[in-house]
Amino acid sequence: MAKFVPPVSPLAPKHVPDMPALDGVTLATAEAGIRYSGRTDVLAIGLAKGTTVAGVFTKSKCPSAPVDWCRANLAGGTARALVVNSGNANAFTGKKGADAVALTAKIAAKAAGCKQSEVFLASTGVIGEPLDASKYQGVLDTTFAAAKPEGWLDAAKAIMTTDTFPKVATASAKIDGVTVTINGMAKGAGMIAPDMATMLSFVFTDAAIAAPALQALLSKGVTSTFNTVTVDSDTSTSDTLMLFATGAAAKRGAPLIDSATDRRLAAFRKALQAVLANLAEQVARDGEGARKLVHVVVKGATSNASAFKVAKSIADSPLVKTAVAGEDANWGRVVMAVGKAGQPADRDLLSIWFGDVRVAHHGERDTGYDEQAASAVMQRDVITITADLGLGRGTAKVMTCDLTKDYVAINGDYRS
Amino acid sequence: MAKFVPPVSPLAPKHVPDMPALDGVTLATAEAGIRYSGRTDVLAIGLAKGTTVAGVFTKSKCPSAPVDWCRANLAGGTARALVVNSGNANAFTGKKGADAVALTAKIAAKAAGCKQSEVFLASTGVIGEPLDASKYQGVLDTTFAAAKPEGWLDAAKAIMTTDTFPKVATASAKIDGVTVTINGMAKGAGMIAPDMATMLSFVFTDAAIAAPALQALLSKGVTSTFNTVTVDSDTSTSDTLMLFATGAAAKRGAPLIDSATDRRLAAFRKALQAVLANLAEQVARDGEGARKLVHVVVKGATSNASAFKVAKSIADSPLVKTAVAGEDANWGRVVMAVGKAGQPADRDLLSIWFGDVRVAHHGERDTGYDEQAASAVMQRDVITITADLGLGRGTAKVMTCDLTKDYVAINGDYRS
Repeated sequence: MAKFVPPVSPLAPKHVPDMPALDGVTLATAEAGIRYSGRTDVLAIGLAKGTTVAGVFTKSKCPSAPVDWCRANLAGGTARALVVNSGNANAFTGKKGADAVALTAKIAAKAAGCKQSEVFLASTGVIGEPLDASKYQGVLDTTFAAAKPEGWLDAAKAIMTTDTFPKVATASAKIDGVTVTINGMAKGAGMIAPDMATMLSFVFTDAAIAAPALQALLSKGVTSTFNTVTVDSDTSTSDTLMLFATGAAAKRGAPLIDSATDRRLAAFRKALQAVLANLAEQVARDGEGARKLVHVVVKGATSNASAFKVAKSIADSPLVKTAVAGEDANWGRVVMAVGKAGQPADRDLLSIWFGDVRVAHHGERDTGYDEQAASAVMQRDVITITADLGLGRGTAKVMTCDLTKDYVAINGDYRS
Repeated sequence: MAKFVPPVSPLAPKHVPDMPALDGVTLATAEAGIRYSGRTDVLAIGLAKGTTVAGVFTKSKCPSAPVDWCRANLAGGTARALVVNSGNANAFTGKKGADAVALTAKIAAKAAGCKQSEVFLASTGVIGEPLDASKYQGVLDTTFAAAKPEGWLDAAKAIMTTDTFPKVATASAKIDGVTVTINGMAKGAGMIAPDMATMLSFVFTDAAIAAPALQALLSKGVTSTFNTVTVDSDTSTSDTLMLFATGAAAKRGAPLIDSATDRRLAAFRKALQAVLANLAEQVARDGEGARKLVHVVVKGATSNASAFKVAKSIADSPLVKTAVAGEDANWGRVVMAVGKAGQPADRDLLSIWFGDVRVAHHGERDTGYDEQAASAVMQRDVITITADLGLGRGTAKVMTCDLTKDYVAINGDYRS
């Protein structure tokens, strides 16, 4: 099978935001030839002294070597350097993988002038191939030396694998009267069913926030953002979402915040949520082969947790996703997905909407069912499927995309 | 999108067995025009007086109206008629669906000369469309009147939807020195992740076995056969597997068996298991768009139940299934699927085989890894993926197929 190169997702955001410089963060990219040729595959980020860090990672029982490394370093709470490569995930690589991580950290610490315990690493790409970290020798020092406050979009490009567009987002908020910035980036595009994190995403702020507070903010923020995205129900070995706070805004009078529940964080919390939600949606919009973005809303469940499981069952169903791809208002498959979720449900209380069109009500096709109206909804780029179980007050939202022939083409020959 | 008509699965069995007549069973098919035109869409089966019956059904919370009907009638333990239609599943059809079932049973009972409580019904096809049972009027009486002991393959054809070949199997066994026959049929081909049953399957024997014993045999038999098949992880609203015993072999001296643990059933139990396993494998071989049959074997788990969940996680993974479609020995995706299963697993004890080729061992690529040997395995029609978790003695087997562009094509426009 010839390598299939998918076109840019039609769901790509129309406007890419101008990413402002963020005090305390410098960026540079390089071509280390890890796997790809003719494109950047390494991102080096320098972080100001005093930068705090938080992270959430994959729940996979087979995590990658960089995930192990970051988890261990997170306890220190401070970060000075971040190195990300694309092309090789350094996952399921045994002792060789741990050695590669240690060598990368050693080279990066020397290049960035910091301790190895302040270096954070992430890798994305093929699983199971040893990563030759010696390729970083002579690359990372010049890269860190060249790092500048701009270049956020280039940074997002360097970490892409099957992504068809780079994903960045920015927001600002006032803390105690001082404006701080939040910049973030993410990459998808397959093996996406994050569970406490996503494939790879890095978010930065110049706010001064102590590490435990930062961790609490991130752990809460991920629940309704990245953890509601599923492209293909497959959870990565490498899911990594990290939040770095350089504290550089302290020079401009921003207070040091040491509790996530500090009232002065109200606007910041909202802005952080917006950045995480924006990046998460971009991941769904660039799901492998995606042509449609699908919001799944479940209400009337016995609990929010139950609603979430039903929403995931709908969003992960290949039959629902292929129906969306075919613009087929096949709500019977939504009934199927509700029925198989293993959660409390009563067939005869269930109602279903495509967009604003109620297609099924109380256990059967809606009496006013209008195939044309339902089909018109399915022709849109962005479709909301709502299921009301009619049992209680539990609600949940999940984001996904359709399942197209391009998904099969992309994944039928990714490795070779 | 134009209707995609898939070719006959390359995995179809090379030889279709000659199905012998089975004393006490007569069959006939008809064109009732439920949905399809120019093909049979109704199967009517007459059963001798005294026929006992057992059944297992979908665990969906949104079961079809015929499933409700069969569950209720099963308590009586006797059967005289079975009516199956294809094209419309009569699922999520509310009171109209229950009324359609009642009318069908009334017409069938009159045609077969039995009580309505002895009529069993099954429907397969689109979900959510009302089924016009008045179309059976004038059809079922002539059909039951025309029923004959032969025509098993035609019967299997009449219940097909997206199946590309009819599925039948037969076996015989001696009970207390008397030979009895077991004949079965099944249909797939999508929405297949049976949980206590499959889409539709009907098995018949002329043995004389009391209903409770028959039920015990069936419930046990399904665990390692139909319940180990997954085409697309989507569980149907209509899953129905029924076993009918006409008892006609009693005339030839076969004893009446009233316990599933009766020692005289040893050979029968084995033959029944063979028929169920054969039909289940045919369902996997005709999975929508399938080009490869995949056996997933998990061993070394902490329990059999845990092994089964890991095996399902591998077999349901779109990334594993697309890799198989692309003949890509991408064992990293098997690592991913083990890791996401939520079951006890230790990355550094895990080993993986494609066929006989060990590709990963103790947490990394096998030191003797041979890409050519692994790729050669992937080019086969039938592929075994084995994962040894290295933790305990739990084992499980699951059957699935690859995920191809044809699956997307078939399901992107099934309804219209």
